[in-house]
Amino acid sequence: MRKINIGLIGLGVIGSQVAKTLLEKQLLLAQAVGMPIELKKIKVAPVDLQKPLAEELGRNLFTTDEEEFFNNNFDVIVEAMGGEYPALEYLTRALRNKCHVVTSNKEVLSKHLKELTDLAAQNNVSIRAEASVGGGIPLMLPLQEGLTANTIHSILAIINGTTNYILTRMKNEGDNYEECLREAQDLGYAEPNPINDVEGYDAAYKLSIMASLAFGLVIAPQDIYCEGITKLSAADFKYADSMGYVIRLLAIGKENEQGISVRVHPAFISKDKFLAKVDGVYNAVLFGGDLVGEVLFMGQGAGDKATTSAVMSDVINCCADVINNSNNRNRWQIDQKKKLTPISNIETRYYVRLLIADRPGVLASVAKCLGDHNISIASALQQERDNDAEVVIMTHTAIESAMQKAINQLNKINTVLQVSNIIRVEE
Amino acid sequence: MRKINIGLIGLGVIGSQVAKTLLEKQLLLAQAVGMPIELKKIKVAPVDLQKPLAEELGRNLFTTDEEEFFNNNFDVIVEAMGGEYPALEYLTRALRNKCHVVTSNKEVLSKHLKELTDLAAQNNVSIRAEASVGGGIPLMLPLQEGLTANTIHSILAIINGTTNYILTRMKNEGDNYEECLREAQDLGYAEPNPINDVEGYDAAYKLSIMASLAFGLVIAPQDIYCEGITKLSAADFKYADSMGYVIRLLAIGKENEQGISVRVHPAFISKDKFLAKVDGVYNAVLFGGDLVGEVLFMGQGAGDKATTSAVMSDVINCCADVINNSNNRNRWQIDQKKKLTPISNIETRYYVRLLIADRPGVLASVAKCLGDHNISIASALQQERDNDAEVVIMTHTAIESAMQKAINQLNKINTVLQVSNIIRVEE
Repeated sequence: MRKINIGLIGLGVIGSQVAKTLLEKQLLLAQAVGMPIELKKIKVAPVDLQKPLAEELGRNLFTTDEEEFFNNNFDVIVEAMGGEYPALEYLTRALRNKCHVVTSNKEVLSKHLKELTDLAAQNNVSIRAEASVGGGIPLMLPLQEGLTANTIHSILAIINGTTNYILTRMKNEGDNYEECLREAQDLGYAEPNPINDVEGYDAAYKLSIMASLAFGLVIAPQDIYCEGITKLSAADFKYADSMGYVIRLLAIGKENEQGISVRVHPAFISKDKFLAKVDGVYNAVLFGGDLVGEVLFMGQGAGDKATTSAVMSDVINCCADVINNSNNRNRWQIDQKKKLTPISNIETRYYVRLLIADRPGVLASVAKCLGDHNISIASALQQERDNDAEVVIMTHTAIESAMQKAINQLNKINTVLQVSNIIRVEE
Repeated sequence: MRKINIGLIGLGVIGSQVAKTLLEKQLLLAQAVGMPIELKKIKVAPVDLQKPLAEELGRNLFTTDEEEFFNNNFDVIVEAMGGEYPALEYLTRALRNKCHVVTSNKEVLSKHLKELTDLAAQNNVSIRAEASVGGGIPLMLPLQEGLTANTIHSILAIINGTTNYILTRMKNEGDNYEECLREAQDLGYAEPNPINDVEGYDAAYKLSIMASLAFGLVIAPQDIYCEGITKLSAADFKYADSMGYVIRLLAIGKENEQGISVRVHPAFISKDKFLAKVDGVYNAVLFGGDLVGEVLFMGQGAGDKATTSAVMSDVINCCADVINNSNNRNRWQIDQKKKLTPISNIETRYYVRLLIADRPGVLASVAKCLGDHNISIASALQQERDNDAEVVIMTHTAIESAMQKAINQLNKINTVLQVSNIIRVEE
């Protein structure tokens, strides 16, 4: 009887769960696909062979040898090793072998999107990547098959669970960033070296993939303006709360007449917005389309089981492609001639927190400086401290480049002791 | 050049927008599909020919004659007429003609699910119905292609915008049901005869389709316990609020050892739950699966454009099936041998509101009656009124059948003047 042969690369957190699921759910999968699915071989690093799971599943299922692995006659290869290299080589090789490919690897995909999807098309196979963004939440499927008749004009996303956990703690406990990061590390929500998460790089990889699909052109990670959460302090959360906002690390993609703006940065969101209510390690993505209006997807953005749910949906869809000979059915339409617009062009409201000398006329000179750059003040609050004063300003809508110039100017006023933080407001 | 021929049945709110979208978005659709799509003919009732749109699109596009319509060589037929008959006949005929079928018609699909999906399978074509549940929100796609590796154990859904609007107004304004219904009617959110919405039938149709897919067996509308919102009063909302709950009309599907419980009824939900935050005409569906955990989908559950977004996604996917010859790719796996469990078997907490005579010992006899049925009280509140007293009780978890017996008994106590309301609590 014909069956579908699967190869798996990687035995980390996700790879292990994928292997277990392929074996434990054989019956369910065969029913879903209409044909038995066999996990034929797992390519691992030598060190993985020491893992209890490797022993449990039997040594024969594993190989550390690339040639031996690729000599199998796979229908579908699942890459769950992560990182740019050698994942790129393996994916390339799999596609050249005319295997359908499923990957959970946001980094390699976002950095080589055009190359990999072109290669898949040339070889008449699919590359599917549901697990690369938003863990278990179906996001690629809606973008590639569900919202296809829409012109998507906006993406607003909380797609990094680590930072959302930290920001939720800062909001609820009033603690500072460092404490909340340490706590997240203790709980395993943040890595010992948290830079990929807290600087927004992880979110930028994911936004790159989603925005490329949503807007129909290749948007590389380096095209995305990226600002992390490390400068946020308890004071910012206190002021945000008093003004009716929460602070989230948002991945934003917006298309307007000027072009497409793509960026990852902390933002004020009004408390009554749905994304403001997404606490903890949850992920949520809000797409805006001309037909559908706003549609929101929320769920666990990480975790071995949730991510495996996404990997398996890709595997099942690849199997359907194998059975139906509908080889390159999966759609990556990223050839539109559109342009990106830099962060300097965006228009938004700004929250600005300053330390000024507690002397007459300082607030006036701050206000004048903003006014000189055509930035008008919606509200201002000055609070006396021991030797100085803190000023918090909410502006009306202003252009980013004007705001940056104004901030430079403010830094030159010697009664302005410090520009403590500037945070964009997402209406 | 080969193109894909579409036939459309119906020119109501949805049919009109589908027709406009097929014509206005030709280029986008051709790109998405890889082949031009042509709307060849629209089957309408004679009265529809008077509509301005019919004139605008040209008389040639329309026919009122069933034979003339089906004589076209369609690849895909979109049914947007609604209702059970004659939609069933048209769908049957379309499938027998080996056309792929897209329907937004929850009533005919839920009442004839097995018959229609079997017919599609026999004729090796797809029947797709994204627009039948949740308007523009991709829900069928996740169930049929996204969460497929999961064993789904629960559905909790707000899938009727009319009632959610009314309940939101009752919550926010403290008004009574009748006033809020009238307001919803004035705004066009509720129909002049609102029975389908307010009695929960619409939600039951939708739950029938979702639950059939999620649990893998045919669940007909009449299998679903159904209770509407007409008995809710301002007092219930006031008490709910004071206890930390909101009231929603929930469509619930849950599988446990006893079987699958499917039901539509008003329910208390804790304010901190996500579904408690879904206000107004929005729809939201929360699926619980063994791998994915909880995943939520939210968006506009009605409206011509949102619903058309869903119809068009089905059309595009059918076109891909036509092009790839992957004919019956769409999955309706509803053949599992599982059993349903009646409402009398469910276990939940209950909110009970009673009017009692303001006399010594009445609360004690109420408490005794509940205790006699093994129902223990979590909290109780008695409030004096003019000539009587109102008692509000929150129970611990109890079995529905016991609760129903207790209520019958309470009605026989002559110092219990009225059992005003009983509402289940969804934890």
